[in-house]
Amino acid sequence: MDLDLARQLSVANGSKIMLLVMDGLGGLAHPETGRSELETARTPNLDALARESACGFTLPVALGVTPGSGPGHLSLFGYDPLKFNIGRGALEAVGIDFDLRPQDVAARGNFCTVDGGGAITDRRAGRISTERCAELCAKLCGIRLDGAELFVEPVREHRFVVVLRGDGLSDAVADTDPQREGAQPLEPRATASEGEATARLVARFVEEAKRVLASELPANMLTLRGFARRPDWPSMPDVFKLRLAGVAHYPMYRGLAKLVGMEALPVGPAIDDSIATVRENWGRFDYFFVHYKYTDTAGEDGDFDRKVAKLEEVDAALPSLLELGPDVLMVAGDHSTPAVMAAHSWHPVPFMMRAPWTRSDACDAFNEAALQKGSLGTFPAVEALSLALAHAGRLTKYGA
Amino acid sequence: MDLDLARQLSVANGSKIMLLVMDGLGGLAHPETGRSELETARTPNLDALARESACGFTLPVALGVTPGSGPGHLSLFGYDPLKFNIGRGALEAVGIDFDLRPQDVAARGNFCTVDGGGAITDRRAGRISTERCAELCAKLCGIRLDGAELFVEPVREHRFVVVLRGDGLSDAVADTDPQREGAQPLEPRATASEGEATARLVARFVEEAKRVLASELPANMLTLRGFARRPDWPSMPDVFKLRLAGVAHYPMYRGLAKLVGMEALPVGPAIDDSIATVRENWGRFDYFFVHYKYTDTAGEDGDFDRKVAKLEEVDAALPSLLELGPDVLMVAGDHSTPAVMAAHSWHPVPFMMRAPWTRSDACDAFNEAALQKGSLGTFPAVEALSLALAHAGRLTKYGA
Repeated sequence: MDLDLARQLSVANGSKIMLLVMDGLGGLAHPETGRSELETARTPNLDALARESACGFTLPVALGVTPGSGPGHLSLFGYDPLKFNIGRGALEAVGIDFDLRPQDVAARGNFCTVDGGGAITDRRAGRISTERCAELCAKLCGIRLDGAELFVEPVREHRFVVVLRGDGLSDAVADTDPQREGAQPLEPRATASEGEATARLVARFVEEAKRVLASELPANMLTLRGFARRPDWPSMPDVFKLRLAGVAHYPMYRGLAKLVGMEALPVGPAIDDSIATVRENWGRFDYFFVHYKYTDTAGEDGDFDRKVAKLEEVDAALPSLLELGPDVLMVAGDHSTPAVMAAHSWHPVPFMMRAPWTRSDACDAFNEAALQKGSLGTFPAVEALSLALAHAGRLTKYGA
Repeated sequence: MDLDLARQLSVANGSKIMLLVMDGLGGLAHPETGRSELETARTPNLDALARESACGFTLPVALGVTPGSGPGHLSLFGYDPLKFNIGRGALEAVGIDFDLRPQDVAARGNFCTVDGGGAITDRRAGRISTERCAELCAKLCGIRLDGAELFVEPVREHRFVVVLRGDGLSDAVADTDPQREGAQPLEPRATASEGEATARLVARFVEEAKRVLASELPANMLTLRGFARRPDWPSMPDVFKLRLAGVAHYPMYRGLAKLVGMEALPVGPAIDDSIATVRENWGRFDYFFVHYKYTDTAGEDGDFDRKVAKLEEVDAALPSLLELGPDVLMVAGDHSTPAVMAAHSWHPVPFMMRAPWTRSDACDAFNEAALQKGSLGTFPAVEALSLALAHAGRLTKYGA
């Protein structure tokens, strides 16, 4: 359902909806066992929940399309990820609680290491500490640009955010990150004529930064990507009549939550921190987005066994979430990250929803093989919220 | 397929298509037995048909969206219900064979009972008889409005239709029905500036009607809803090259059939009346829409057992329909009305099609559990007619 229809049909009531996202949830069979991560993990609580749930797979964007974390989450939040896209810079800036204004342009930065000829030898500058990152950002903040105010804010390890503030800025600027080692950072270039002035400002910043960082090995250079403005989107509270809490530790997911109108609650890194945060705020919200990152990290690292262990960690925590008594509980992923691929993938993502008024199906476990018997089949992730709202009694009838 | 493509690909031939709609067909499990209405009913004929059919579920509008009867039927007729919407007033007016003209504005009316303070105590005025309704409508017809001709036509029991005819009328008028008892009828208000003059005419009518009805207990007041014009849509005969018969007893479904270009045949209330009507008119048409209302009525009343009995009634009648020998027979519902919810719902609706050239599937019965093994899966209801036309040999090849 599109957002206009959702706005028309949705109503508030006293029900509570929870979306548990295991990042990179979906997997593929290990070549030696023929079983995926979920099929390998011991997950008695997830399996029991599957027997009480409507089950299936979500399609985050489209068949064959591998989503980034932005589209993967936006679709679960009810936003068509092909209509609602957002640059990494704005996501990161909002995620660290930077007050990103509508006219600002933000980019995600990485400190990197370059050799004497300027070629990148380490795209992450040896993953310098967050403290070191903050020191370097403070130095870069001293750079003066004609016609724009400059902010350089640390994120985590080698990651930071650059924001330009001024009149007539544009986000039509190409990435300087060549996305591989051995190449030099690219010159900042406009991707459209309205980006030319901004690209010149960025080029000036990079030139000065190179000078400032020259003696700061291993962080003696930087790359920038995802130039973006803050998007002006319909907000979830307005469209869906929900009071929403985002329970995510990582800045990017906090940023996503805030951009759609959730209150991003402060929360520690562990799943128990998330559960405690949900519990403490249970009365204040109708909807909780709970983000668990480590399944994806393990998948991206190609570490099958660690991904299995992380799935089991979520399984062990599940009863504490169920105890809170959400009316509708969705267990979902933003995309698949099969450990055997060590990367995000396009594969549909395991999904289940426990709610009043579901039809029973024959799923007796929460894994790729068992979910093929699910009553939901493979459906667009962007429809998941509509389903949850319907089961929560929050959608009125369409048409006479 | 959209209507433009359908118009391009469809051809006439001698084949016959039948659509049997059991209103509110889909259900949910009874909490005591764990079985839905269809899973409970003894339906040997439907089950046998399922074994010869391609089976699955239709999605009337979108996941999570509960359709009214209009969208639920329009999608089965091949009209995208998000593009083709229609107000209740126009549906009812056309359904009672009122000659609704393009500039007219129609509303559905209910006689109701109000207390001394004007608050509604019975939204249906004790379901007065259709004869009494006709007498009251005749009285209301005497009201004179400056600038518009007025028609007040009885429908059934407490239901009637009001039509305004004149220049510059608009359907941008809000319902006066507060949809609950204990509240007063709402003032007629414009929903957009172009509706203001019409809203004033409606207000004048309501004021006069209140006076006329003052001593007519229990029908001492009225409510109005679904202000609408007659839509100007592509017609099914034109788009799909079909001669279509609508076999529906209830005015609203007759109205829907007529609005898409079917000939609404006069028919009695029983399923045997419908079968007799189809039989008598078999030679004149290529397509028969047969509407069975009572499954929905039982569901809306929350009467699980009566819905089961009504499903069995249809099952018993099925052989007589099959005897007529339709080339393609679809058994479908416009939406689900689970008795346990006592309301329309968003759940996908059981569907089967017996036709030449279907692929076999593993469905051995016509119910929600068995249909999950269907070869059609869950598909948009708006595509059902395309499928039927294809199996009837009525769609030519697309592209070279």
